[in-house]
Amino acid sequence: MKNFLTELSKLDLAKKWIHEAGEFLKAHMNEPLEISEKTRFDDLVTNFDLTVQKQLVAQISKHFPADKILAEEDEDGQKVRFSKEIAHLWLIDPIDGTTNFIAQRDNFAIMLAYYEHGKGKFGLIFDVMNDNLYWCDDENAYRNETQLNVPNIDLQHSLLGVNAYMYRTNKAGLLDLSQHSLGVRVTGSAGISYTQILDGKLIAYFSNLQPWDYAAGTIISEKLGYVTRNLSGTQPSFDGREEVYTAPAKLLPEIQKYIKMT
Amino acid sequence: MKNFLTELSKLDLAKKWIHEAGEFLKAHMNEPLEISEKTRFDDLVTNFDLTVQKQLVAQISKHFPADKILAEEDEDGQKVRFSKEIAHLWLIDPIDGTTNFIAQRDNFAIMLAYYEHGKGKFGLIFDVMNDNLYWCDDENAYRNETQLNVPNIDLQHSLLGVNAYMYRTNKAGLLDLSQHSLGVRVTGSAGISYTQILDGKLIAYFSNLQPWDYAAGTIISEKLGYVTRNLSGTQPSFDGREEVYTAPAKLLPEIQKYIKMT
Repeated sequence: MKNFLTELSKLDLAKKWIHEAGEFLKAHMNEPLEISEKTRFDDLVTNFDLTVQKQLVAQISKHFPADKILAEEDEDGQKVRFSKEIAHLWLIDPIDGTTNFIAQRDNFAIMLAYYEHGKGKFGLIFDVMNDNLYWCDDENAYRNETQLNVPNIDLQHSLLGVNAYMYRTNKAGLLDLSQHSLGVRVTGSAGISYTQILDGKLIAYFSNLQPWDYAAGTIISEKLGYVTRNLSGTQPSFDGREEVYTAPAKLLPEIQKYIKMT
Repeated sequence: MKNFLTELSKLDLAKKWIHEAGEFLKAHMNEPLEISEKTRFDDLVTNFDLTVQKQLVAQISKHFPADKILAEEDEDGQKVRFSKEIAHLWLIDPIDGTTNFIAQRDNFAIMLAYYEHGKGKFGLIFDVMNDNLYWCDDENAYRNETQLNVPNIDLQHSLLGVNAYMYRTNKAGLLDLSQHSLGVRVTGSAGISYTQILDGKLIAYFSNLQPWDYAAGTIISEKLGYVTRNLSGTQPSFDGREEVYTAPAKLLPEIQKYIKMT
């Protein structure tokens, strides 16, 4: 019973922290941005990514000093590695969709995911500009206080969220798959794409992602019958960038007719 | 003076009608859809497209019986042809982004454009689910009651709205151009893409469009210094489907380094 209460409390705290981080962004986002390039001119980080990450890390460390944290904006050499050996692990994406944040001040998300010995316990995706928090407990998925429902799964009458590069190069057959759907949409944010899956607006999402990009979305969408796979059809490694997709488990046979590593 | 008052009144009526059409859609959109294929399985029309068009046509015909109407869902043979000879011409797109309407019940728009002797007098784009009406008078562009501003124009720090097919086939150099921007976004609705231009979230939009898809967006965005061109760099014909783009006039020299019909 004690453990159950602790876990609830962690989730409630995480909701509070992510809301506070969103309020911070809204209050300050029209101040001048400091933008830095990470790997190339379109791989960007801002002072706001760094500040939000610091705020979230500080809260976790203060309340749960023994917990480990894997955060997007840490230097690679300093990053904790995902492992089942870790009893309490948080993944943080302070601003998912940084390019959208810079160019649009919209269509970005803050994400938190929490694991115990490699098992996802809860995830949170905060669509800041729409003020919608997507989250889950052990059993159900929610948008704010509304419980979300298992979607209809019919590829031919649904849309796919895709990474533009994977789509145009027909990576692993993604273009072929898309031609059996109503088409593709490109939002530029994994977090926003996951919210569209959770709202039933996309049937699946394909992209080239880091663990903090897909962790929260994977945990939440599992409550609605979704699974996350790499292009070989197995579990993602949670170790570095990887091409993955999230789709209804019942749709895997149809998807795997097209999506195959060659 | 009389003519000026008449024109104001037309715009005010158009705003009223488009709001009523949006309210109708919101009130009824969760009733069962009747979906028909037009040219292929992913070119769709619903009973709601037809009903909204009928409502708008009825209002225009009642108040301005001499005005001509070019509406998306008319049979091709019955369609009025765009012409400078027509003194008073309305273009109607009852639901732009019908696929989004079907698959998402979001990310669609109702559009109206009004021309006198071939000159755009006003346009309206109603993003129904966000309750945002984009419109213009003779001088300025607005989102609801907020006047919109001329955007920053800097391709390298901006996003492009694109048609997925034109992007992946590098039509007229679109992929090359995109690689000098922060990337592409695909929304599946011309109307929603134009709202993102007007909000400064996209710097330009490229797609394969019918006149009712680009008319309102063209008229409104001109107030912010945008122009609409076909891939040869000339005015679109307003006669049938055409690959066009809308971009800041000042950015044309940079865009036309890449976008060329071959």
